[in-house]
Amino acid sequence: MTHTPLRNLLFVMSDQLRWDHLACNGHPNISTPHLDALAARSVRFDAAFVQAGVCGPSRMSTYTGRYVGSHGVTWNRVPLPVEQPTLGDYLAAAGRKLHLVGKTHVIADTAGLKRLGVPPGSPGWRHHASGGFVEVDRIEGHGPPGAESGYAEYLRAHGYAGADPWTDHVVGADGPDGTTASGWFLRNVHLPARVAEEHSETAYVTGRALRFLAEQGQEPWALHLSYVKPHWPYLAPAPYHRRYSADDMLPVKKRASELDAPHPVVAAYMQMEESQTFARDEVVRQVRPVYMGLIEQLDHHIGRVIQALQDSGQLDHTLIVFTNDHGDYGGDHHLGEKDLFHDQVIQSPLMVFDPRPEADATRGQRVSAMAEAVDVVPTALDALQIRPALDRTQGRSLMPWVHGDTPAAWRDCVFAEIDYSFRRARLLLNRRPGECRGWMVRERQWKYVRWQGFAPQLFNLEDDPDEYVDLGQDPRLAAERQRLDERLHAWLNDQHPRLTMDDAEVAQRTDRAKEHGIHYGTW
Amino acid sequence: MTHTPLRNLLFVMSDQLRWDHLACNGHPNISTPHLDALAARSVRFDAAFVQAGVCGPSRMSTYTGRYVGSHGVTWNRVPLPVEQPTLGDYLAAAGRKLHLVGKTHVIADTAGLKRLGVPPGSPGWRHHASGGFVEVDRIEGHGPPGAESGYAEYLRAHGYAGADPWTDHVVGADGPDGTTASGWFLRNVHLPARVAEEHSETAYVTGRALRFLAEQGQEPWALHLSYVKPHWPYLAPAPYHRRYSADDMLPVKKRASELDAPHPVVAAYMQMEESQTFARDEVVRQVRPVYMGLIEQLDHHIGRVIQALQDSGQLDHTLIVFTNDHGDYGGDHHLGEKDLFHDQVIQSPLMVFDPRPEADATRGQRVSAMAEAVDVVPTALDALQIRPALDRTQGRSLMPWVHGDTPAAWRDCVFAEIDYSFRRARLLLNRRPGECRGWMVRERQWKYVRWQGFAPQLFNLEDDPDEYVDLGQDPRLAAERQRLDERLHAWLNDQHPRLTMDDAEVAQRTDRAKEHGIHYGTW
Repeated sequence: MTHTPLRNLLFVMSDQLRWDHLACNGHPNISTPHLDALAARSVRFDAAFVQAGVCGPSRMSTYTGRYVGSHGVTWNRVPLPVEQPTLGDYLAAAGRKLHLVGKTHVIADTAGLKRLGVPPGSPGWRHHASGGFVEVDRIEGHGPPGAESGYAEYLRAHGYAGADPWTDHVVGADGPDGTTASGWFLRNVHLPARVAEEHSETAYVTGRALRFLAEQGQEPWALHLSYVKPHWPYLAPAPYHRRYSADDMLPVKKRASELDAPHPVVAAYMQMEESQTFARDEVVRQVRPVYMGLIEQLDHHIGRVIQALQDSGQLDHTLIVFTNDHGDYGGDHHLGEKDLFHDQVIQSPLMVFDPRPEADATRGQRVSAMAEAVDVVPTALDALQIRPALDRTQGRSLMPWVHGDTPAAWRDCVFAEIDYSFRRARLLLNRRPGECRGWMVRERQWKYVRWQGFAPQLFNLEDDPDEYVDLGQDPRLAAERQRLDERLHAWLNDQHPRLTMDDAEVAQRTDRAKEHGIHYGTW
Repeated sequence: MTHTPLRNLLFVMSDQLRWDHLACNGHPNISTPHLDALAARSVRFDAAFVQAGVCGPSRMSTYTGRYVGSHGVTWNRVPLPVEQPTLGDYLAAAGRKLHLVGKTHVIADTAGLKRLGVPPGSPGWRHHASGGFVEVDRIEGHGPPGAESGYAEYLRAHGYAGADPWTDHVVGADGPDGTTASGWFLRNVHLPARVAEEHSETAYVTGRALRFLAEQGQEPWALHLSYVKPHWPYLAPAPYHRRYSADDMLPVKKRASELDAPHPVVAAYMQMEESQTFARDEVVRQVRPVYMGLIEQLDHHIGRVIQALQDSGQLDHTLIVFTNDHGDYGGDHHLGEKDLFHDQVIQSPLMVFDPRPEADATRGQRVSAMAEAVDVVPTALDALQIRPALDRTQGRSLMPWVHGDTPAAWRDCVFAEIDYSFRRARLLLNRRPGECRGWMVRERQWKYVRWQGFAPQLFNLEDDPDEYVDLGQDPRLAAERQRLDERLHAWLNDQHPRLTMDDAEVAQRTDRAKEHGIHYGTW
C-alpha cells in the first residue's frame, strides 16, 4: 500500500523512564495525561524492548537501527564508529536534516575522522562527530552544559549567577544548614532544586524545541527532542519534588530468595554501591516519589509540544515517535540503577502517532507484537518514504502495525546485550575487559541470558513474570536453554557484517563473472 | 625479551597456491628450490590456515589482522570499509609507508569516503581507497592491467602491440588454427602464452619490486610483493607451460562415495561449471601440470628477490613473511576452484624469516602450532616493534615461535568463513543473499562447519585426514558437534566489536564515575 509521505518527524526520547511508570501503562498513582492522550491517538507497543540497558549502547542502536554488536558502542563513552550510518545520515542522503534538541550520548570518533583525513571542523567532520545530528542545542544532563548548549547562558540571563549555575541551581538545593545540598546525593533529592520549574532542564529543552518548530514554518523538518529526564541526578524543581509520596510508589519487586545464590554477575551488581544503597527502604521511599515527579514534569512539557504542533497545524503532517533508552531498578531485585536484563530495565514505552487517515482505525490500540529499538529508524524512514540506497538497519518498520496490517513472519523474540567491562562488577569478578559480555534473547515465555565465563540465566515469564527464579541451572530445562542458546547463535550469525554492499546488489552480481570476461571453469 | 627491531618488511603473497604444492611441503615432483631454501632459513608453520577460501575476504583478513565477520568483506569486490585499519594504517601511524607491487583485491569504500567528506584525490582518500597501501604498481591479474599499473605500457614497449596486449599475449596463445587461443579456456592452457617469460606478469612484478628495493638504499622500507600467480588464467609462458606432465601430479583426492548424498551446499558447488569441468580427468591432467609450472616460475622469481636482498646486504635487516590467500581444488573432492573449507583450500604455506641471531636456533624448523592469516599483521608489527595506539588485530604475533619460545595458551583451533551469496550455488539452493553464510572451526582432530539453513558438516581428521566422510549427521557424534558449535558461538561472541576503544582504555576507565563528579548510588 502506498501512502502520502509524512512531511515531518518528531522523535521524542526520555531517559531512564520505566515502562510501568506511565498511567496509560497501568501505574495507578502517576499522572501522565499528555502521554496518555498521545497514546490514545497512537499505536502503543506493549512489548517493546531496548537493545541495551544503558544509555550509550541503547541510544546508538536507536539512532543507527543496528544491534550493539553491530554498531560497536558497547558502553557509554565509546565513540560511535564513523562508518555507522545513523538516522541523520539516511536523512542527509535524501537531502534532509535531522535536528537535535537535548541529549544523544554520542561520542565522536575523532580518531576515525582523523585517520580518514576528514578536515577538522569541516561540515563532514561536524556531521559525523555529532552522530549525524544537526545540534540546535545539545545538553546531556550529566554535568554542566557545555558550549554546544545555550543552557548555562540562559540560566545566567535568568538570574542564576555563578560560573556553574547548573551545579549550583539545577542539581543544587538549599540544604538544611544553609549550604548547598547536592542533588548528586540521594539523601538530598527530597529537596526542591534551586532552579524554578520554568528554567529547569526539561522546561529549557522544551522551550528550545518550540522555538525551533516555530522557525520551520511550512518547511519539512525532522527533530530529535531528547529529554535528559527522569535520569539522575533525581533532583526535581518545585512543585514536582513533592508531587508524590512513598505511598504512591509501585511495590518494590524483590524477594529474599533472590539473595540466595544469585548468578555471579547479578551478585556482583548487588555488591555495587547503587544496589547497596537502593537496598535500603528509606532510599527507595525517598527517590521514587521524586522520580515520579520528574516523569509528571516531563509529561507536562511533552504536552506543550504537542499542543504547539496542533495549534500551528503541523500535527497533521508529523510522525511522532515516543520512546526511551532504558529503565531504572529503583531497588527492584535488590538492585539500583540499570544495565542488566530485567524487564524493569529493558522494556520500553514506545508509541507511534501517524496523523494520516489510514491510521485512524488503530488509534489507541495496544499492539502485543514484539518491537525493538532498532525499529525506530526503519519506521521513521518508512513514514517519510525515504528509501536509503544502502540500508544497514537491522530492525523493521512498525508502520504496517500503525496502519492496521499484520506483517508476515514478525519476530517472536528480542535481543539485548551488555558489556560490563567498565563497571566495578568486572573488578569484583576479577575479569578482564573483553570478557564481560552478555547476550539476552527474550521470547514471550522465556528470557535467556548467555554470559561470557559464567552459567546462563533463564526465566520462565509465564510462571514467573517478575523474574524471581533463575532457572539457568535447572537440569530439567537443559533442552530449553540449548534451544535458546541456538537462537542467540543464529542471531549472532546474522549480524550481517557486509556493511559496504547490500543484499540487493549482491543479488544483481550473483554468478556474473562471465559477463566480465572471467572464465574459471570453462573447457 | 627485547630485540633490536628489524628495519624492513618484505611481505610476499602468492595467489591460489596450494600448501601441498611446494617441494618443502612434500610434493614429490615439483621444483621450488628458492622457497625451499627460504624455508630452511625460516620457521615454517605447517598448520597455518586462511580465514576464507576466496581472495577478497581472505586478503582483507591478512591485511587487517581481523576475521571476515569483523572486517565485513565477505566476498570479492565488497569494498573494504573505510574504518577497518590495515597494516598500512598501523605503519602510517608510526610514520612509515607500506608499498605495494602486485595484487591486493582491495575495493575502495568510495561511498564511505564520500559520506565522510574525505576530499576525493586527497592523500587520505588515496590512502584508504588503496587499503592503506602506497601503490607502486598494482596489478590484479584478472583482466587487462589498468592505469595503476605500468604493465600494459611495458608490454607495448617490449613489442607486444595492440590496445590490450595483456589479453592478446599474456593470456593469449597461438591456437592450432592460427587464431588466438584464450587462456581463459582450460582447453588451451597446455599452449605457451604469447608473452616471453621475462615479460610475463610474474617477471614484471618481480622486476618492479627489484627496482623499488634498489631505490630504497639504506632507508627503512616495507613492501608487499603480491604475485597474481598461480591463480587462473592458468596459461604459462614457455618453458613453464610444459615443465610438468600429468604423471607429475599429486593423485586426485576424490571418492565416489562423496557423490552419495553430499551436503546440500557441497552438492550445489558440485553442480557448478568449474566442478563439472574439473570432474573430467582430461581437464585435471591438462591444468595441473601448467599450475605446477606457474608455481615453479613463481619460485624462480622469488629467488631473484631474495638474492637481490642478499647482494645488497638488506637481507640482514629484513623480516620476510611468505604466505598465500587460498588454495585450489583442481578436481579434488569432485570440485573445481575454491571457496569451501577443505584443507586443499584453506591450508596455507606460511613461513617467517628473521635474519637476527635470536632466530638462528629455529632456522628450518617446522612448527605444528596452529597459525592463521590474521597473525600476519601482529607478526610484522612485532618484528618492526611498532605498537599501535589502538590495536584492532585479532591474531597473535608468531615471532615468539621464530625465537624459539612457546607462547602460553596458544590457540588449538582456527576459524574460517564463507558467504556464497554471490555464487550460483545460492541460486541452485534457492536462497537469498544474507542466508548463505558458513563458519568453520578446525581443531587437530575435528573440522566442523555450521551453515545457515542447512545441517552442519563434521570431519574426523584423525581417521579421515582427506575429508571424505561427512559425519555431520552421525547420531553418535551429536555431543562432539554441540561442543564444536559452542566453540564457534564463543568465537562469534568474542568478535570484539568495540572498534573505537581498546581493552586497556576500558580498564583505565573502569568504575571511575565519581572522579568525574558523577554519583548515582550514594546516599
